[in-house]
Amino acid sequence: MVDILHRIGVTSSPDAVYAALTTVDGLANWWTEDTDGDGNVGGVLRLCFEPGGFDMKVLEAQPAERVVWEVVDGPEEWIGTQVRFELKQEDGFTIVLFRHEGWKEPVEFMYHCSTKWATFLLSLKKLVETGKGEPAPHDVKISNWH
Amino acid sequence: MVDILHRIGVTSSPDAVYAALTTVDGLANWWTEDTDGDGNVGGVLRLCFEPGGFDMKVLEAQPAERVVWEVVDGPEEWIGTQVRFELKQEDGFTIVLFRHEGWKEPVEFMYHCSTKWATFLLSLKKLVETGKGEPAPHDVKISNWH
Repeated sequence: MVDILHRIGVTSSPDAVYAALTTVDGLANWWTEDTDGDGNVGGVLRLCFEPGGFDMKVLEAQPAERVVWEVVDGPEEWIGTQVRFELKQEDGFTIVLFRHEGWKEPVEFMYHCSTKWATFLLSLKKLVETGKGEPAPHDVKISNWH
Repeated sequence: MVDILHRIGVTSSPDAVYAALTTVDGLANWWTEDTDGDGNVGGVLRLCFEPGGFDMKVLEAQPAERVVWEVVDGPEEWIGTQVRFELKQEDGFTIVLFRHEGWKEPVEFMYHCSTKWATFLLSLKKLVETGKGEPAPHDVKISNWH
């Protein structure tokens, strides 16, 4: 089992970051505009992209502390993996420790997703700090895999 | 042992990407302006940042194919790890498969380095595609750890 890890710091309260992770409006403004569903525990979020998308079941949602999703539909390599955001305060930043864990193998698609996650997390930072993120389809394109 | 993985695609020849990985001028224009040393096999590259830096011994340098470095000086968590760039052509892109491998533990600094590597690889892409990257000290700041 292998994991993707990232760390960003957002100059905002943990509550503001938490809202961006748990509301459809928040997610639509940093990850993908085509988002719907329910970001509360037990809910399922649907995040659509060209050409595919992900369904996330919300396993944990602790305000200002932690959000954990399980991928219940999407690319085969993602199904059953978990996406985890841990929040803490440090030096005036809300630090987000991100982990997309439980990949069976470090396939080439995992390399791609690691870099894309970095760009989406920087979009999350930008959204919370400035009010405007870079969600799909306006996301940073990194390769032939978009 | 845990690894950082990334994948970017650069709209250029593999030779142009290879040059950016193996020359002091190339490295100084996407990673850190304060670079010196020798990017050929057996050489040591010195990459300086505020407040520290890295010394990389060049283990492999196959034109248009592969560059492998071993970290011989720098932060304790980096020493003995290897940084690997594999190049291939696909759909008009030079694909860079990046791996920073051999971390002993997934410490918080590894989360930070994973995200920073993504920003530096996008700087490499920008340099080769446009002639201008974002090397330190002009790099994208992602948190209180810079």
